[in-house]
Amino acid sequence: MRTSKPRLRIGLIGTGFMGKAHVFGFAAAQRVFDLPFELELHTVADRDEELAAAAARTLGFARSSGDWRSLVADPEIDLIDITAPNAFHHEMALAAIASGKHVYCEKPLAPTAAEAREMADAAAAAKVRTQVGFNYLCNPMLGLAREMIRAGEIGTVRSYRGIHAEDYMADAEGPFTFRHALAGGGALADIGSHALATAEFLLGPIERVMGDCITVIGSRPDGRGGRREVEVDDASRAFLRFANGASGSIEASWIATGRKMQHDFEVYGTRGALLFTQERLNELHFYSTADATGRHGFRRIEAGPVHEPYGRFCVAPGHQLGFNDLKAIEVARFVEAVAGLRPEPFDFRAGQRIQLLVETIQASAREGRWHVVA
Amino acid sequence: MRTSKPRLRIGLIGTGFMGKAHVFGFAAAQRVFDLPFELELHTVADRDEELAAAAARTLGFARSSGDWRSLVADPEIDLIDITAPNAFHHEMALAAIASGKHVYCEKPLAPTAAEAREMADAAAAAKVRTQVGFNYLCNPMLGLAREMIRAGEIGTVRSYRGIHAEDYMADAEGPFTFRHALAGGGALADIGSHALATAEFLLGPIERVMGDCITVIGSRPDGRGGRREVEVDDASRAFLRFANGASGSIEASWIATGRKMQHDFEVYGTRGALLFTQERLNELHFYSTADATGRHGFRRIEAGPVHEPYGRFCVAPGHQLGFNDLKAIEVARFVEAVAGLRPEPFDFRAGQRIQLLVETIQASAREGRWHVVA
Amino acid sequence: MRTSKPRLRIGLIGTGFMGKAHVFGFAAAQRVFDLPFELELHTVADRDEELAAAAARTLGFARSSGDWRSLVADPEIDLIDITAPNAFHHEMALAAIASGKHVYCEKPLAPTAAEAREMADAAAAAKVRTQVGFNYLCNPMLGLAREMIRAGEIGTVRSYRGIHAEDYMADAEGPFTFRHALAGGGALADIGSHALATAEFLLGPIERVMGDCITVIGSRPDGRGGRREVEVDDASRAFLRFANGASGSIEASWIATGRKMQHDFEVYGTRGALLFTQERLNELHFYSTADATGRHGFRRIEAGPVHEPYGRFCVAPGHQLGFNDLKAIEVARFVEAVAGLRPEPFDFRAGQRIQLLVETIQASAREGRWHVVA
Amino acid sequence: MRTSKPRLRIGLIGTGFMGKAHVFGFAAAQRVFDLPFELELHTVADRDEELAAAAARTLGFARSSGDWRSLVADPEIDLIDITAPNAFHHEMALAAIASGKHVYCEKPLAPTAAEAREMADAAAAAKVRTQVGFNYLCNPMLGLAREMIRAGEIGTVRSYRGIHAEDYMADAEGPFTFRHALAGGGALADIGSHALATAEFLLGPIERVMGDCITVIGSRPDGRGGRREVEVDDASRAFLRFANGASGSIEASWIATGRKMQHDFEVYGTRGALLFTQERLNELHFYSTADATGRHGFRRIEAGPVHEPYGRFCVAPGHQLGFNDLKAIEVARFVEAVAGLRPEPFDFRAGQRIQLLVETIQASAREGRWHVVA
Repeated sequence: MRTSKPRLRIGLIGTGFMGKAHVFGFAAAQRVFDLPFELELHTVADRDEELAAAAARTLGFARSSGDWRSLVADPEIDLIDITAPNAFHHEMALAAIASGKHVYCEKPLAPTAAEAREMADAAAAAKVRTQVGFNYLCNPMLGLAREMIRAGEIGTVRSYRGIHAEDYMADAEGPFTFRHALAGGGALADIGSHALATAEFLLGPIERVMGDCITVIGSRPDGRGGRREVEVDDASRAFLRFANGASGSIEASWIATGRKMQHDFEVYGTRGALLFTQERLNELHFYSTADATGRHGFRRIEAGPVHEPYGRFCVAPGHQLGFNDLKAIEVARFVEAVAGLRPEPFDFRAGQRIQLLVETIQASAREGRWHVVA
Repeated sequence: MRTSKPRLRIGLIGTGFMGKAHVFGFAAAQRVFDLPFELELHTVADRDEELAAAAARTLGFARSSGDWRSLVADPEIDLIDITAPNAFHHEMALAAIASGKHVYCEKPLAPTAAEAREMADAAAAAKVRTQVGFNYLCNPMLGLAREMIRAGEIGTVRSYRGIHAEDYMADAEGPFTFRHALAGGGALADIGSHALATAEFLLGPIERVMGDCITVIGSRPDGRGGRREVEVDDASRAFLRFANGASGSIEASWIATGRKMQHDFEVYGTRGALLFTQERLNELHFYSTADATGRHGFRRIEAGPVHEPYGRFCVAPGHQLGFNDLKAIEVARFVEAVAGLRPEPFDFRAGQRIQLLVETIQASAREGRWHVVA
Repeated sequence: MRTSKPRLRIGLIGTGFMGKAHVFGFAAAQRVFDLPFELELHTVADRDEELAAAAARTLGFARSSGDWRSLVADPEIDLIDITAPNAFHHEMALAAIASGKHVYCEKPLAPTAAEAREMADAAAAAKVRTQVGFNYLCNPMLGLAREMIRAGEIGTVRSYRGIHAEDYMADAEGPFTFRHALAGGGALADIGSHALATAEFLLGPIERVMGDCITVIGSRPDGRGGRREVEVDDASRAFLRFANGASGSIEASWIATGRKMQHDFEVYGTRGALLFTQERLNELHFYSTADATGRHGFRRIEAGPVHEPYGRFCVAPGHQLGFNDLKAIEVARFVEAVAGLRPEPFDFRAGQRIQLLVETIQASAREGRWHVVA
Repeated sequence: MRTSKPRLRIGLIGTGFMGKAHVFGFAAAQRVFDLPFELELHTVADRDEELAAAAARTLGFARSSGDWRSLVADPEIDLIDITAPNAFHHEMALAAIASGKHVYCEKPLAPTAAEAREMADAAAAAKVRTQVGFNYLCNPMLGLAREMIRAGEIGTVRSYRGIHAEDYMADAEGPFTFRHALAGGGALADIGSHALATAEFLLGPIERVMGDCITVIGSRPDGRGGRREVEVDDASRAFLRFANGASGSIEASWIATGRKMQHDFEVYGTRGALLFTQERLNELHFYSTADATGRHGFRRIEAGPVHEPYGRFCVAPGHQLGFNDLKAIEVARFVEAVAGLRPEPFDFRAGQRIQLLVETIQASAREGRWHVVA
């Protein structure tokens, strides 16, 4: 691509599924948006040279490395994209920040809020831009929902219900994985984090929580003929109090048999309501008390060019965005944030915030009483 | 009607909307079902002679009375149907039971679990039959759901979510009514009771609860130019633990703008799931892991004659029952219970149970900690 | 019932399922509506005395008869309700009209439009009131749809699509019945008639049609070990031109596997659209171009008291009417028409009209060209 | 990208919205699939040098040209992608074929079936691969539907209903465009073609049709203060007979107010049924008579990795593909066809076929009688 735009040189750590997905995201963002930078896939790193070289060929990177530290230190690279296993996020991100790189890190940012805070503080001190991938929030229909709430189209918000339920851990004979160990986080950290992010995205800060975290499948096959005790929750619930005065709840489950992507919310205000399910991610349902008598009802708003940035992907309404399109939006927004064109709302500070909410809910559940979000 | 069936002579107290609805229920039950009794509308009582006489003419009762006590004492009457204001339920029911009458009482049975227990104990001692109106449970699709759960069609139940949300109190300028005073009960007692009844109907006893009860609209117009403080909750939530090991939650709200009858549940088991909403009361959605690869999905089961007693109302599937048909089923089942043909599952003991759950949730909410259901 | 209202004495012919359903309808209408008459179940007739006597006991008629002619001639009877097999409708109705009775006749009115015209003409000459049972049209949501169309809420109507599909004849091994003989009518006459009635109810007269009538299951078991050739259509379609300039189509099928009650329509106008399915008969979906930018969408209007006469059945919205409630509305409207309080839109003339449409479509299909509705 | 794969050098004609969309498609296909070629964006042509040069920079082509003929003749180019206005398709495609290029052409292939045949014949003679963009058919759920039909999962297919309705021409004051002139084709050619393609994709060849084509908006503003007569249909319907014995219908409308992408079908067989709407393109609804008694219902199958090639885009079910993903699948399949790895089902012959169906329906509508598809 021959443009006069400045280049943004990307170093990717990790070549698994998420690494591939991020590269798709960079490529799609570049094609779909008029980005302030030309993105350059500079170097990819993985745990050995051979793997990294193969990934470079497949994914289109110019160079490869078996040592992520050399990649992080490379002065030619502007942005480090971390898709390595969760356990490495903290170390890698701190190193990248120390080298003055912008950092794009897969969620969860870190296993504890304290570590996440350290990462966010380091980024703030170094004045680099960061991002954690909360791609559901990039859906134009969520943007619309927030815009409608802020504009008062449903009046004063009174109550909220958020759900994130899937069934990928529903099989009790599924093997013990890193996600079932304490550091893995559990259902609340893994997907409840999405429900929490959406709740604060729409309604603002949560002030107090009462949690309930449950391990349903107590042990799983350890792959060596025995079973290993599961250390995390399979399903969690929380009561919420928002700073704006609304009350609400969230629920997270990775054992909700039959559910593949139930990321839902319902928001009720004094003059209307909004309903959404990720199962039909191109729709937002809106009830307004301002409708004429006998004509009230939840209307199914279909995503279209009027709902930015849908029009970047398709000029006609109703054609629908997919999950990967949301990823492209996420990437584009971060690139714009790197250019200083907009703040990045889902930066490390936001990732720290979500981790704090998760831990506060977990602590509340352990103690069986309400906790203030510190 | 000329039959050789024994008569069941009905005395009705109260001639308002619910009184009329009950009379419809008796009439419809008699027409639709092959009841063990011929129902006779014997006497109707209200607070004055004139009102009662007018109601007798309109509703088809042979006699009328301005004194409910005389009605309750009338040896010709077999069954007392109480649709008077809630505050009178306790006294009237106890008097009717003392006279050896079967008693059909609108919900809520009594403002406190203690009073409800007294009523249930009296009925047990007198060996009379009682019923509290939980008509949602009479829906053939709820019967189907329970049958499927018991038969193991969704495997072992792991989690449950129940909701009952409407918006009839959403307007903050709606007047203060008896429902906003402590004895009125609030959203949890008024409609959360339905959510609790459905939860136990499907999954069995709830053992522990953690409640959250919120008054959103603090005061309402008192009808004399001022405002009066609301004493009850507008929205409540509870975490649940069932005796069968499942966890769950319920939510009740009478300020859910846009919702007219969101009595929903979702039940997730090891081998499937069930979804229901009263907004589409003739449908039950069923997911089964036993379906073939690539063919899994929630199937929309439409009510039909195969789902008893739908066939009493209509010989063809898909034609749909309405709310009043559920009332007729409720009445018919009670009449059968009076005849000893079946136990009445929603008797005063059940009403007491629901009141106990409501109070336990309220106490838990006040104290901010889990409570065992005594 | 003791009222000072004049009595309307009913004579019922036929005691099968539809006879029972009509009696439910009379009873429910009397309870739910404030009718201008007190309805009296006077005499029931069936093909022998014993059967009729048993039905009188079960259904609540004072008298019974084994001879429908004596019932029709009885000067004490005001209204004859015909639920006997279709083949008898013509003779019975003409006899009843000749005796000056009002006549309520199950659909189809007659096997041919010519006979239906004879019946309608006779009723007009005798100045008696008549009704054919098109109960789907009694749904408050259909009334709402018509009101909205007439008020211009969707602008000028441009196109229409109507469907009535069920699957009660989908099994090719289902036995040959009277419905499979020419006089039985077939799918178009049996249920397509509903689609046609709804189309004209909403948009007014159909002027031209192009039909397509198909027999899919050529023969069926004759009950004597052989098979008998089916003489009617299993599925039919028609293109339509309405007098108002709109074009449209209807489709009827009784072999639509999986469909139990797909009585649907979609109406598109210059400024909006309406969608309906009988599968969710308490909902009407409304799109308006007048909505704000980015807020357009089909809104799901739920039936409530504001949609007359829903409020007769239930004071709260969203509680839902059932199929039998529609029957009660149908009966009530006819009784009001008998009292001269309103015209009966679904009288014998309307029944004749539908039969004419059916025959015109059938003729068009036979000849493979457009026909004008004579 | 450094691979040892052979290159497929692409020459694009046209740089408007569709040109951009195709480039996205090539890029996405290359990222998502393991294609047999490395795709090279070689040269882009538009009507002047400057425009082409700008597009080359934006879209990532190495070279540009103001003369499509030089591009078509360039021996370095393997595949010509035509997104120029419809009027040029015929000439450009024939020239490309004459130069031995594979050709990817936007739909409609040509304004007449005769021209389309000429193009298909030329491609066959030259043994080059061709494709017309019917991207709806690339949806994994349509592939699933066809697979299920072929495997007999709904038994013998009896009837079909297809719809393609949008509202982009609903405004009568929208300007006259090339689409409103005879060569533009009208609603049937423009989007009814999709409905026809889907019908034959699922059920096989259509043998006979009866058409109904209607111009609702007779004239449109001509942009010079006057109005110009519209020469094409706004809404069309057709009855269908398939070679497999099934009957059916399709409907096309570009004035269906409120509809953005109603590409729907319903297929009814002897043992089940399938329902689909593009409004929820990641779902297929399946009814099977093989389900257990009382458990029948349409099940909502959500797209997942088990439905190829969904897994190329996302490893988890329920995350959803978007419209642009379907375009990527379309491109990938064509590239595989070019490599001889699979036949291309939507080649020029298929485009010719659809045009033939359109013309046969139009002729049938003009003459008001059934036509055999020649």
